[in-house]
Amino acid sequence: MVNETQHTCSASSSSKSDGGSSSGSEGSKDSSRCSTPVLDADRHERLREKMRRRQDSGDKWFSLEFFPPRTANAAVNLISRFDRMGAGGPLFIDVTWHPAGDPGSDKETSSIIIANTAVNYCGLETILHMTCCNQTKDDITGHLQKAKRLGLKNIMALRGDPVGEEWEEEVDGFNYAVDLVKHIRNEFDDYFDICVAGYPKGHPEAESYEADLRHLKEKVFAGADFIITQLFFRSETFLKFMKDCQAIGITCPIIPGIFPIQGYHSLRQLVKLSKLEVPQEIKDVIEPIKDNDAAIRNYGVELAVSMCRELLDSGMVHGLHFYTLNREVATTEVLKRLGIWKEDPRRPLPWAVSAHPKRRVEDVRPIFWASRPKSYIYRTQEWDDFPNGRWGNSSSPAFGELKDYYLFYLKSKSPREELLKMWGEELTGEESVFEVFTCYITGEPNKNGHKVTCMPWNDDPLATETNLLKEQLEKVNRRGILTINSQPNINGKPSTDPIVGWGPSGGYVFQKAYLEFFTSSEIVTALLKVLKKYELRVNYHIVNVKGQNITNAPDLQPNAVTWGIFPGREIIQPTVVDPVSFLSWKDEAFALWIEQWAKLYEEESPSRMIIQYIHDNYYLVNLVDNDFPLENCLWQVVDDTFELLN
Amino acid sequence: MVNETQHTCSASSSSKSDGGSSSGSEGSKDSSRCSTPVLDADRHERLREKMRRRQDSGDKWFSLEFFPPRTANAAVNLISRFDRMGAGGPLFIDVTWHPAGDPGSDKETSSIIIANTAVNYCGLETILHMTCCNQTKDDITGHLQKAKRLGLKNIMALRGDPVGEEWEEEVDGFNYAVDLVKHIRNEFDDYFDICVAGYPKGHPEAESYEADLRHLKEKVFAGADFIITQLFFRSETFLKFMKDCQAIGITCPIIPGIFPIQGYHSLRQLVKLSKLEVPQEIKDVIEPIKDNDAAIRNYGVELAVSMCRELLDSGMVHGLHFYTLNREVATTEVLKRLGIWKEDPRRPLPWAVSAHPKRRVEDVRPIFWASRPKSYIYRTQEWDDFPNGRWGNSSSPAFGELKDYYLFYLKSKSPREELLKMWGEELTGEESVFEVFTCYITGEPNKNGHKVTCMPWNDDPLATETNLLKEQLEKVNRRGILTINSQPNINGKPSTDPIVGWGPSGGYVFQKAYLEFFTSSEIVTALLKVLKKYELRVNYHIVNVKGQNITNAPDLQPNAVTWGIFPGREIIQPTVVDPVSFLSWKDEAFALWIEQWAKLYEEESPSRMIIQYIHDNYYLVNLVDNDFPLENCLWQVVDDTFELLN
Repeated sequence: MVNETQHTCSASSSSKSDGGSSSGSEGSKDSSRCSTPVLDADRHERLREKMRRRQDSGDKWFSLEFFPPRTANAAVNLISRFDRMGAGGPLFIDVTWHPAGDPGSDKETSSIIIANTAVNYCGLETILHMTCCNQTKDDITGHLQKAKRLGLKNIMALRGDPVGEEWEEEVDGFNYAVDLVKHIRNEFDDYFDICVAGYPKGHPEAESYEADLRHLKEKVFAGADFIITQLFFRSETFLKFMKDCQAIGITCPIIPGIFPIQGYHSLRQLVKLSKLEVPQEIKDVIEPIKDNDAAIRNYGVELAVSMCRELLDSGMVHGLHFYTLNREVATTEVLKRLGIWKEDPRRPLPWAVSAHPKRRVEDVRPIFWASRPKSYIYRTQEWDDFPNGRWGNSSSPAFGELKDYYLFYLKSKSPREELLKMWGEELTGEESVFEVFTCYITGEPNKNGHKVTCMPWNDDPLATETNLLKEQLEKVNRRGILTINSQPNINGKPSTDPIVGWGPSGGYVFQKAYLEFFTSSEIVTALLKVLKKYELRVNYHIVNVKGQNITNAPDLQPNAVTWGIFPGREIIQPTVVDPVSFLSWKDEAFALWIEQWAKLYEEESPSRMIIQYIHDNYYLVNLVDNDFPLENCLWQVVDDTFELLN
Repeated sequence: MVNETQHTCSASSSSKSDGGSSSGSEGSKDSSRCSTPVLDADRHERLREKMRRRQDSGDKWFSLEFFPPRTANAAVNLISRFDRMGAGGPLFIDVTWHPAGDPGSDKETSSIIIANTAVNYCGLETILHMTCCNQTKDDITGHLQKAKRLGLKNIMALRGDPVGEEWEEEVDGFNYAVDLVKHIRNEFDDYFDICVAGYPKGHPEAESYEADLRHLKEKVFAGADFIITQLFFRSETFLKFMKDCQAIGITCPIIPGIFPIQGYHSLRQLVKLSKLEVPQEIKDVIEPIKDNDAAIRNYGVELAVSMCRELLDSGMVHGLHFYTLNREVATTEVLKRLGIWKEDPRRPLPWAVSAHPKRRVEDVRPIFWASRPKSYIYRTQEWDDFPNGRWGNSSSPAFGELKDYYLFYLKSKSPREELLKMWGEELTGEESVFEVFTCYITGEPNKNGHKVTCMPWNDDPLATETNLLKEQLEKVNRRGILTINSQPNINGKPSTDPIVGWGPSGGYVFQKAYLEFFTSSEIVTALLKVLKKYELRVNYHIVNVKGQNITNAPDLQPNAVTWGIFPGREIIQPTVVDPVSFLSWKDEAFALWIEQWAKLYEEESPSRMIIQYIHDNYYLVNLVDNDFPLENCLWQVVDDTFELLN
């Protein structure tokens, strides 16, 4: 947006002023359905409805702007940043359109693919920028169709920079942002929410401030739903602009663009591109400290906080849009100091939701992918429908091909050398593997002094909830019960519980104890004997890589292991142990031994052969203790098994 | 069956021997679905599968034969008997076909309508008898199509009695039961389970015992699934017959027909019709006591018990079929003494299920019809699909017309005079009505000394569960909170709890406290003020006869108020407070004031005007306390309301 150039004359008058109220569109049809408990209205509302609701309720909000990365590694980092900054509760993020970076392509770094990832895998409401200058109608329609297909619902309609100095209008071409707004409304009716850019100081190329306001009004009347402004340095600038907009009849939300100054050079570059003038009082402070990045950033944070406070205190501003420059620290600090960064965002469900429209009703998943939610979303992206309250409704769901799981952002975030330090440069036997698992659980460094912060089955460090089971997990991993997933039993804790809570407040959450692990056939043989004693209480699924499957689950029905009871709602049961999808997970879980671990070592090396041996001979076991009000018996099951072996 | 005559020659050889394994039928397709938690396998299996499962598990079972009643009153009584005897857990009942009684008609006393009621409203697996003699192919096909449409799944294929003495075979007609068996298999493939009759002593008209066995074999090979025998007086008779059947290759289940002697005259009549000979040792006992009905019945019970014991002890018999003659006492006593009457039948769900195939997956209902389940089934009989795990899936379900609710077996079972004694010959004001409600709750006689055992909104005496709330209910009814439905909160009681338990053992059941009542607008005004204090805890719906509706339910979503957690299953939530269907219930609940109560009195009489006033001015209120783990706050809400009024 920083580079946005705007039109200097009005090509056509707006023929359509009802952009926000078209009926029969896919969006509004869907939202009238009443087929799901709607735990979280955010999942069902369009962005413009969310804004309106926040404005009505007086909840202040923020949003974050990012640009697409240049390299695949940078993309992996950016997506981690989405997850971290998403935790603070932005109303939306937006991703800029870089014409030079093949923005509509399938490349992992393209604007559209980054926006797709934000929506589908990070669950973030996302606006994709799109420029129209120097592009054919067909190209633009193609980009929009692709965006819709990927589940994107919001477009920031921009002109984009003319390529040369001597730019001239094309007859019947897309010369101005307003042309793109009209095109979107003509071709896609009310499907997209449309955002346009506003210039609090007037666009530098505009004839006048007033002419610029008139152009903005045209864009809004052509069907734009809200406005995000160019950055500015004084709150008065924005407040005057907002009043001027209102005076000429612009009534849609206008969101101020906030740029926390993060460094001397980035400020200079920005100013040059945007043709903005930095006020003298700011220059006076910055010049003397221009080589002290930390000092400039601190000043930038101070400045942004005080300007944001003025804006919010004016009563005219409900949300703030941050130009992050893909950086985390300054923006996060401003938001925390303003008190609008959510320290403990309420989880609507125990797992990370996706923001794709067709997944709005998704409210149940198998527990197996709990630590690999992006892999689950990826492998189910072709599903037309999502199990809706009852897993079994979706008969034999076909999971996406396993070969896809090494999709770039599902790959381990750590480079090979780091993984070798964590998981062992050289393995001497199965016990070396036991030790890796144990170190991951305990957080203690391994014998070479390195902490094990991730495992092939867990992208991230242990969940807080797992800490409740730490002591027992450590004990069993040491002895070759290699745990990859677990949850304690919960008998009606408040839904606001900081560790196990989820869903709206006033509810109660429940869990059945769950334990999933790899282990040797010797242990499985003893375990099966022990399980006879627990036949009516513990459900189990035991499978090896060849698919030999031992279970006592009745009729292959799913077992609900996490559920919640809320005021005025139906029961939500977001996590199940589903016997059918367990077999798809089994393929993934066994393959991770080879793909992520064994392949770190030379072919035919002893280390690789140890992992290969485990892959070929171990079993994957899951256990559920159905008696959730009693003390978890699964540790007793494991203890009994070890005792039988001794 | 008693009158069944059988064929005396073999008209055609069986062309089909795979009657039991035809593929692609509606039944087998449905049963392979995995779309519901299947709490109760009985709801999903065909009768022949249930028999096989009981045989495999060694659970002994029984079944009951009834004949259609002659009058509407007798039909109402018979249906009450179905409910009472159904509670003992018969595997099925069967209803005989009375050609003289227009058995396939829509009359409330016809064989097909009685069987329909047993299946749909009493939830009983039912076999409909059908005879073929002297009927056209089209008539028979019509009856079978109607039976299928009504949800009947089992046919007892019989010849029926020839009309005259000089009966002759019709060419290409239905001369024998085997013709009907073949016709059913030809026209309906494997849809129906087919039962045929067996004669342990040989049919009286058969050339020989051996010839009769051959005819039986033909019926089985034509597609019959099992055999029920004519009555007999000695266990040896049956056991010999069974061995002889097996010797000629009849391998399907053969169920002995048991006739407990209940009186001298019924025995004589039966013997005459069936042309059976009563053994001398029985005659010797009966003749001297022939005028003492009780003594004969006692003897009949003794005789039946000892014969049944011999049959069961033989190891060859897994189920017993009882000719009840539409009487209750003797059969029930035999079953209780044999130990196969279920004293505490496990409820698969908290409400009475229907046995119609399309309702097999029904596992959620609105709480409003809890005391009028037959009305609910009737008003939803046209639904194609049943809310399956989530009420909201079925958008705006259309309930059947209210005018239908006076369907004969939904009418009050008590005659007008009795209702007047219970509800008051003359009402003197609203307080008289309060007193009726109070007496119904307390079980105390009213001021004229009559107990109030039913109310327009409750066909039956109070549920045991309601006793838990008795004291509070009495207090509030006295003061004009006229309760018609309530349940206590339950926080995880075992599913085997004798009062509130339901579903398979090993589970836990939960409830939110619920209270539904009529009350005056004065009380509603105070109540609404009080409810403000409970806004986040209590959901309410308050509506008058004109449909003025006050609620705090979010987005008209259903609120689950009964749910269960079971080993290896998904969550079951069988009862919801559904705002949409509440408006259908409201019409019914208000209309019952007029239809069942006001109309007992003369038009324009003061009593009638009092009820009319209540109908026109009172509100119907329901309250849910969402905080099920805490003490029920609804009584406090009501107390606060009264306090505010004082």
